[in-house]
This record gives sequence, C-alpha cells and structure tokens, in this order.
Amino acid sequence: MNWESEQDQKVQRVEELIGAYLPAEEGYQRTVLEAMNYSIRAGGKRLRPMMMYETYRMYTECDGSAGEPDDMVIAPFLAAIEMIHTYSLVHDDLPAMDNDEYRRGRKTTHVVYGEGMAILAGDGLLTHAFYTAARAFSAAKDAAERVSLTSPAGDASLCGRIGRAIGILAEKAGTDGMLGGQCVDVEAEKRGETVTMEQLLFIHEKKTAALIQSALMIGAVLAGAPEEDVARLERAGRHVGVAFQIRDDILDVEGSLEELGKQTGSDAKNNKKTYVTLVGMEQAKQDVERISGAALHELSKLSRSNDFLAELVRRMVYRTS
Amino acid sequence: MNWESEQDQKVQRVEELIGAYLPAEEGYQRTVLEAMNYSIRAGGKRLRPMMMYETYRMYTECDGSAGEPDDMVIAPFLAAIEMIHTYSLVHDDLPAMDNDEYRRGRKTTHVVYGEGMAILAGDGLLTHAFYTAARAFSAAKDAAERVSLTSPAGDASLCGRIGRAIGILAEKAGTDGMLGGQCVDVEAEKRGETVTMEQLLFIHEKKTAALIQSALMIGAVLAGAPEEDVARLERAGRHVGVAFQIRDDILDVEGSLEELGKQTGSDAKNNKKTYVTLVGMEQAKQDVERISGAALHELSKLSRSNDFLAELVRRMVYRTS
Repeated sequence: MNWESEQDQKVQRVEELIGAYLPAEEGYQRTVLEAMNYSIRAGGKRLRPMMMYETYRMYTECDGSAGEPDDMVIAPFLAAIEMIHTYSLVHDDLPAMDNDEYRRGRKTTHVVYGEGMAILAGDGLLTHAFYTAARAFSAAKDAAERVSLTSPAGDASLCGRIGRAIGILAEKAGTDGMLGGQCVDVEAEKRGETVTMEQLLFIHEKKTAALIQSALMIGAVLAGAPEEDVARLERAGRHVGVAFQIRDDILDVEGSLEELGKQTGSDAKNNKKTYVTLVGMEQAKQDVERISGAALHELSKLSRSNDFLAELVRRMVYRTS
Repeated sequence: MNWESEQDQKVQRVEELIGAYLPAEEGYQRTVLEAMNYSIRAGGKRLRPMMMYETYRMYTECDGSAGEPDDMVIAPFLAAIEMIHTYSLVHDDLPAMDNDEYRRGRKTTHVVYGEGMAILAGDGLLTHAFYTAARAFSAAKDAAERVSLTSPAGDASLCGRIGRAIGILAEKAGTDGMLGGQCVDVEAEKRGETVTMEQLLFIHEKKTAALIQSALMIGAVLAGAPEEDVARLERAGRHVGVAFQIRDDILDVEGSLEELGKQTGSDAKNNKKTYVTLVGMEQAKQDVERISGAALHELSKLSRSNDFLAELVRRMVYRTS
C-alpha cells in the first residue's frame, strides 16, 4: 500500500472516531448544534488528531501488555483537539477578526449562520471539546474493569494521565498557547504596526505550534510514554508548527485559490507582515528546511519510532497546497 | 455576627481563592490577559463559587476524617465556574448578541477593548476555566501525599471525582446547558417571534439554572457526597436558577439603574418576551414563591445541612436588586 492510501485509511479511521463525539442536531438549540457540525464537517486533513493518534499508537502498539488502554481513551481527545482547532477557525474568520468569507472551499460559519450564532458555535465547540475529553475518565474506568480488575493502581495512574492531558490541552489552547498567539496577531494587524521577528515567531509558536505540541504530548502522556519523550515531542511540535506556518506564509504568496480552497494573497492584501516579507522568500525556504530538520531529528531520538508520523511531518512542511 | 457580615467575610475568602488563579498580565499577549481580568474583576456577588464552596463545606466540615481533601481541590473549581460565568457575560454583551454597553455599572469589555479582543477575552476565560479546573489533579496528588501516603485508593477515587466534576462543568456550560439556552434566546430575539412558555422555561433552565446546578453538584461530587444528594442538588439548582431568572424578569420591570447597576427596562425596550409578559406580574411573583419553595425543600432533604446556603438561596430569589 502506498503512503497516500495508508493516509486515506487512517484519516477514515480518525473521522470515524471523531464522528462518534459530534453532538446530535436536536432540541430547541438545534441551530447552534448544526453550526458546530457544519464547521467541523468542513473537513480538512485532521492533522492534529492524526498526529495525536500516531504518537499514541507508537507507544501502545506491539506492546502486548495487559491493561493497556485501548482506543476508547484516546478517541475523546482526538475529537477534542479537532473541536478546538475548528473553534479557533470559526472565531478567527469572524468580521471582528479576519473577516474571511471562505474556508476550506466553503462559506464560513458566520456567513451561513450569522455572526451571533458563529460566536456561539465556536464557544460550543470549545466547551464540547472539554466535555468530550472528560469522557475519557469513564472510558478508562470501563477499560480498567474489563482488562485488569486486579490492578486498581493502574486505574489511578490512567486517571492521572487523563487529568494531565486535559491540562495540556487547555494550556496549549489558552493564553500561553494558541489564544495568546491570536491576541498578538490581531493586535499587530489592527494597529498596522511592523512586527519584529521576535513577535512573529511568538505568533507562529503560539498560534500554530502550541496545538500541534499538545497533539504530540497528549498522545504520549495517555500512552504512558517516558517523560524524556514527552519533552522531546514538545520541542518537535514547536519546530513542526513554526515550519508549517512559514510554509503557509510561502504558499500565501505562491499558492492559488484552486489548490488551497481559500483566498490567497490575502496577507499581501491586508498588508500583513509575514515571515516571507520579513526575511525574503529564499531565506524563508531555507529556514523551513532547517526547522523541519530539527523536528525530524527530535522524532528520531524518541525511544520508539513511527515511520508514518515522520513522513506525515515531512509532508506537512513540504506541502505545495 | 449578622448574615451580611458573614456573607462579606465569605465573599472575601472566595475572592482570595479565585484571585490566585487569575492570569498574570505579562508577555506579548498582555492585552487579552488585561481584558480577561477586567471582566472578572468587575465583581458581582460571586454567587456560583459561593454556592459551590458552601455545598462542599457542608460535606467536608465537622467530618474529621483523615485524608479529606482541603480547599486546594475545590479552589480551582471556584475560580473555573466564575471564569465561565464571566465569559458568558462578555460574549452575551457583544454587538452581535445583546449589544450592551454597561454591566455591573462598568463599561462592557468590548466597549473598552474592542470587539475582537472581547471575543478573545471570552474565549480566554472559557479555556482558562478548564486549565484551572485541571490544576485540581496536581493539588489532589499533593494532598494525598501529604495526608495519607498509605492509601493510594483514596487518591484514585479523588482523581475520579475531579474528572467527573470537569465533565459536569463542561456539560452544564455547553450545548445541553448554558450555551444551549443562549442559542434559543438569541434566535427568539433575532426572529422577533413570540416564545412559548415551554421555550422560555427552556431558556431559563439552560441559560441560568444549568451553571447553578453545576455549582451545587460539583461541590457535592468533590466532597464525595452520596449520589442521592447529588441528584437532589441538581433538582434544587434547577429550581433556584429558574426562580432567580423570573425574579430578574420582574426586576427588569420594577428595578432601577441605580439599584442594579445596569440599564433596566431593556427587555421591554427590545420587545423581549419574558416570564412577566407571558403570565403577568402577579402570577410571576407567585411562581417565584412556589419554585423557590421547591428548591428549599430539596435542600432540607439532604443528608447534611448548611443554614448559610439555604439563606443565600432565599436571598437570591427574594432580592430587590
């Protein structure tokens, strides 16, 4: 099987796992549930849950140890991270933010459902992410009862891991992570100020890399990986995210509407300072090379290896669309 | 000590506990941190954390059992529920929602910081709420190590309680709770449709009562209260919330700007259907009486009692401002 087919199959599996946690569209509050599902079903490559799942599998496959948690513990977190990613897109697209009308080739949530409902849909996705993640506790309890009735300590340790994973998710999505980066990005644009390289790297590290870090870290933490590996994955995630975002800046100049499914050249249109405008196209391309190399180096030093994950990272930073 | 002094003292204690979890206003993302703290420091009576704390104390005080969790486990949840309440106010006040310029006698967040930053501040408070709640896991671990090294099972059980509490918080804040109610409220207003009594009760139960339910339930769950009591507190919370909200509708007609610190008569101004416009003032007042009676009845049937909590509930529904 070639890599693309393998990826398709894995995306399919991730879609199935995520789909089970999307809310049913019923009740008086149906509109907000529809808007939430409209946003998350717009698709995308499910990169964050995919990275989380592959990291988790790296530590749990071929292990054979009894009492090892199954997909039921990781699945809620796959859905949760995609919900958080989607909420951030819905709110970023709002008129008071980037005011984008298209996303992934479809009309944005506020264009379809109105501004108020789009704010609520984002809030709903963010809240539902933590509701969903917390469902891992009961899944863990069920799993412990199923496979190792004799080991209550195993249950305590898995419970602690889930708690830590929720903390990581909230930290990396919050003011020290994605949301902090978005704040600086919004302010820089509104003021029309020139951002420094230091500020731009802050934006890329927080707005893009933080959630990728959480994907890798949560996969490892839930699987009970060694602490040294969790720290390496945090560093790898920073490199991947920054390289991914610089590539995004490059593609905004070189890409086209057909390939990306969104309006390109929008950074230039908005007079937005990007990595490319700060250092030039050639330097930007060299830096992607260097930073993604650092990411792959960290992955290669882990106590386990996953070729698919390494190739996924490679393709994320060398993509042409 | 009279009741008001006791309340002041307790509010002071809750403020101290919450204050420790507010983010430091530093870093490039300082603006969003300032906006978050501006919103939460606007004050209010801290009713939800107060109810949570009093419920928790009802089950943990005068107990004397070793290994009982101390304030360090409940404190993150006191802060978390106030952050969630505050985020909902910040987003409700936005131009795309109620478009309110004043709240608790101060300018609303978007008036001071702009619309984009107010959206981010709300998102930040919601995310920080779960980040903060998750800090209870490490607090529990520390507490377990401090008081009962010999009982690892106690730690597992406390870990499970915290996980359940996070689930309750997210459920009651989400589409089946507060956010679901807000969705129906927003839609009814935009469409200018007449809401039925069933819809209005849905709005009140979800938008107002759900978070109050979570306050009471989380206090009980974290303290290890009997399941029957948790169920009673869920019912009590629904009654308290609905009665509180009907009182709000009554005060919107009868209150004044000075007393409430916000513009009154706004429901009439917006042609909003309220409990009072649906059943009339006299019936509304009778219903507050009946529903709050049901709440106090549930509280009186719990396995423990807390006179302060009962009086707090009484004053919430009989308030004149």
